[in-house]
Amino acid sequence: MADVQKTKTVTMVGAGPGDPELITVKGVKAIQKADVILYDALASEELLEFAKPSCKRVYVGKRKGKKEFSQEEINQLIVFYAQRYTNVVRLKGGDSYVFGRGHEELEYAMRRGIHVEVIPGLSSALAAPASCGIPLTKRGVNESFWVITGMLSSGEMSKDIALAVQSSATVVILMGMTHLEQIAKLFQQGRSPLEPAAVVHHATTRNQKVVRGTVSTIYQLVQEQQVSSPAVIVIGNVVNESYLLDEFTERYIQTASVTSHQK
Amino acid sequence: MADVQKTKTVTMVGAGPGDPELITVKGVKAIQKADVILYDALASEELLEFAKPSCKRVYVGKRKGKKEFSQEEINQLIVFYAQRYTNVVRLKGGDSYVFGRGHEELEYAMRRGIHVEVIPGLSSALAAPASCGIPLTKRGVNESFWVITGMLSSGEMSKDIALAVQSSATVVILMGMTHLEQIAKLFQQGRSPLEPAAVVHHATTRNQKVVRGTVSTIYQLVQEQQVSSPAVIVIGNVVNESYLLDEFTERYIQTASVTSHQK
Repeated sequence: MADVQKTKTVTMVGAGPGDPELITVKGVKAIQKADVILYDALASEELLEFAKPSCKRVYVGKRKGKKEFSQEEINQLIVFYAQRYTNVVRLKGGDSYVFGRGHEELEYAMRRGIHVEVIPGLSSALAAPASCGIPLTKRGVNESFWVITGMLSSGEMSKDIALAVQSSATVVILMGMTHLEQIAKLFQQGRSPLEPAAVVHHATTRNQKVVRGTVSTIYQLVQEQQVSSPAVIVIGNVVNESYLLDEFTERYIQTASVTSHQK
Repeated sequence: MADVQKTKTVTMVGAGPGDPELITVKGVKAIQKADVILYDALASEELLEFAKPSCKRVYVGKRKGKKEFSQEEINQLIVFYAQRYTNVVRLKGGDSYVFGRGHEELEYAMRRGIHVEVIPGLSSALAAPASCGIPLTKRGVNESFWVITGMLSSGEMSKDIALAVQSSATVVILMGMTHLEQIAKLFQQGRSPLEPAAVVHHATTRNQKVVRGTVSTIYQLVQEQQVSSPAVIVIGNVVNESYLLDEFTERYIQTASVTSHQK
């Protein structure tokens, strides 16, 4: 029985930030081999087209912002399929190790004797700024970047944001739109009212929108331009490096392979 | 003339952390289309096999740790080829926007009227921990990760490391092996002597080596196991999440497509 289990693998595949062509070659190969794929809304449905016709496609995401399955139920589904099929892929938007609860799912499966592998994906924390010409680091401008979740599972704002204000790091906040006004105020007080800030909505897809300003203006601009989640917030002087932003972003969106999915 | 220029593009492609299969699908397509590729040592040579036979391959990296070209010379070479060929690819290891000087090269080309595009790549800052089962964030363990260069162009240690000690973030340090002893001491004093730490050498290749310990033991362990640059340092409680590390890492290395390149 132990030997049979050894041939069964759950592979955690990071689907990337939105554009399906931003998945890795290794990720595509895992999808092509899969007997079952458990996927969620952030993972582009175009990626499922790489799968064999016989592959089972199991949706475990949210629809209209409402979770259909709890994390425990998703864990159980992964194990259910892993015990019955040889190659199970868990396809998650972005990278499964960046606020993705990927490790929780792996741990659950590992503890039940299932072999696991991880194929990292491009996190929107890095790809969203890149897609609009904002480098995360630049010689002479900064020496680090700090990636923070804006929203804890309790619904509160992460305390690390207040700490990040004191640093000189480029700060990248995922899932922070609910607290944007509060976040912007912290940076106005702790850094400068003129600290540059950008919000990138639906990064790397044809629906991408970029709002650029300072921590004093960004909340107002986002309201006016009706930009909402999912979005990545970038705060720091590197935002100013994207002065050719408009043309650059325009080209990026033109070459994006898909529009985004909203469920 | 302006119109002719418009058809000429420099595409900055992130080659990923080592395993050539960790490049993006979009990155491969850019390589296939390229008339000229300017690449360096960190970009896997296997990736050049995707190029057309007629594609010029121009090496602009270091050999035996020694730079053959200055940054200014690399900038000039990019522009030289971009003015003569339609599709020029600048292939850089990891992601060109994470301590990659990618933006400097783009800016130089943009200012000379050349169109530029960016295809982000997987940074070793994220892929190295992933490849040995260390999640960068985990619910209930931490809320952020901070990526810092260990070495400034002046040769000094980044001041952001001392700040990062005060945070609860997972700290990922690239190019930090020269200062490892000093870095470990800062964390012993500022966090705890038992703070978990890992060093990942040649991540995602068959030469990958992982050393795991605490900030009190990591420097000694790295000496004993003769692990050197290139390596990624990870400090934080998430290192403990990789308790099934050995089996996991073993599998990752077995499935890696290539050995690493050292010049």
